Amino acid sequence: MQDIESIGEDLPLLEGIRTCRHIRRLKPDPVPDALIRKVCEAGTFAPSGGNRQPWIFVAVTDAELRRFIGERYRTHFLEYIAPAQEAAKDPSYPEVKRRNMRAAIYLAEHMSEVPVQLFVAGWKRRGAPQVQALFPAIQNILLACRAVGLGASLTTLHLRFADEVDPRLGLAPDTPSCAMIPIGWPLGHYGRPPRRSVDQVLFFNRVS
Amino acid sequence: MQDIESIGEDLPLLEGIRTCRHIRRLKPDPVPDALIRKVCEAGTFAPSGGNRQPWIFVAVTDAELRRFIGERYRTHFLEYIAPAQEAAKDPSYPEVKRRNMRAAIYLAEHMSEVPVQLFVAGWKRRGAPQVQALFPAIQNILLACRAVGLGASLTTLHLRFADEVDPRLGLAPDTPSCAMIPIGWPLGHYGRPPRRSVDQVLFFNRVS
Repeated sequence: MQDIESIGEDLPLLEGIRTCRHIRRLKPDPVPDALIRKVCEAGTFAPSGGNRQPWIFVAVTDAELRRFIGERYRTHFLEYIAPAQEAAKDPSYPEVKRRNMRAAIYLAEHMSEVPVQLFVAGWKRRGAPQVQALFPAIQNILLACRAVGLGASLTTLHLRFADEVDPRLGLAPDTPSCAMIPIGWPLGHYGRPPRRSVDQVLFFNRVS
Repeated sequence: MQDIESIGEDLPLLEGIRTCRHIRRLKPDPVPDALIRKVCEAGTFAPSGGNRQPWIFVAVTDAELRRFIGERYRTHFLEYIAPAQEAAKDPSYPEVKRRNMRAAIYLAEHMSEVPVQLFVAGWKRRGAPQVQALFPAIQNILLACRAVGLGASLTTLHLRFADEVDPRLGLAPDTPSCAMIPIGWPLGHYGRPPRRSVDQVLFFNRVS
């Protein structure tokens, strides 16, 4: 592997943005801590109100802790996805959604073996997490993973059992976990994700 | 100017992330609609739950509408910043915060002349805007502006008078505006924004 400082420095920004598909099929191989540090550093360059930088990143790499979180994730995810699985039996169910569902189920089934379960937590302000800063930081991390060749995706499903996770990560109630980014070397491929044309969602001066 | 398709395609992703400082001093010169389309297209590649893509972008370029919004922004911003201005008279007030405040005041004073006031609105789900999708899209747009050489920043201050803005943009209550990105050619310079070290906010397995 290249040294950590130079890895990923060449990928053009706009190309990276256009091909930052969620990668939910990941190898169990370990990821160097220094590479996790590099992608989290990209997160710290996100904007935040008053430059408060309200983020905390907890990278879970310990096998036992990953198994604990992975088992609960699997249980809650399969419960969550059951209605959609039922709906997908209908032949008219869109194939692109069916593919995404299969990848998400694969991730849930293998969450315990994902080498890095990265949690993004944040300091509350006026009683609520400052998601306006956390989600730009998360997007920076996803893009940085794309640049260095790591697969990643974004999920908030762990919120269903965050009361069991946060105390184990040493996160107090004033800094709750808000999102989870499972990270590992990709089995799947990067590529342009399916999106509506910008011309359907961009208007000048007035929505028409 | 280069043609729109090739402009900004060379900037490396990680370098762009590290130097995407907010630019609040902008020239009044117009920005081509096609360039606004290009940076908003970058926004559409953000992830969203169920790939719902709940975003709507409204680029305000009409001079009269910009003046209406600019005047209200100025009034509300100066009211909002007054306590901090008072606090900044204390010589111990951090100089970096004082600089940011000056830039934000400059933006408020000149908001009417900013060539593009880009509003990001979103479809509600379960009664609330889907900010977990909108803020990654916003971050993509800020990064894309950095890539093509446009100055931009993120503000939500317009929420104080959104009831006057949204109807004028044709935004119904089920698609409220959530953020505003003033965009123009930069007077200021890109550069590494001041941030705490990642080592202060990244933990492995447990916050210590």
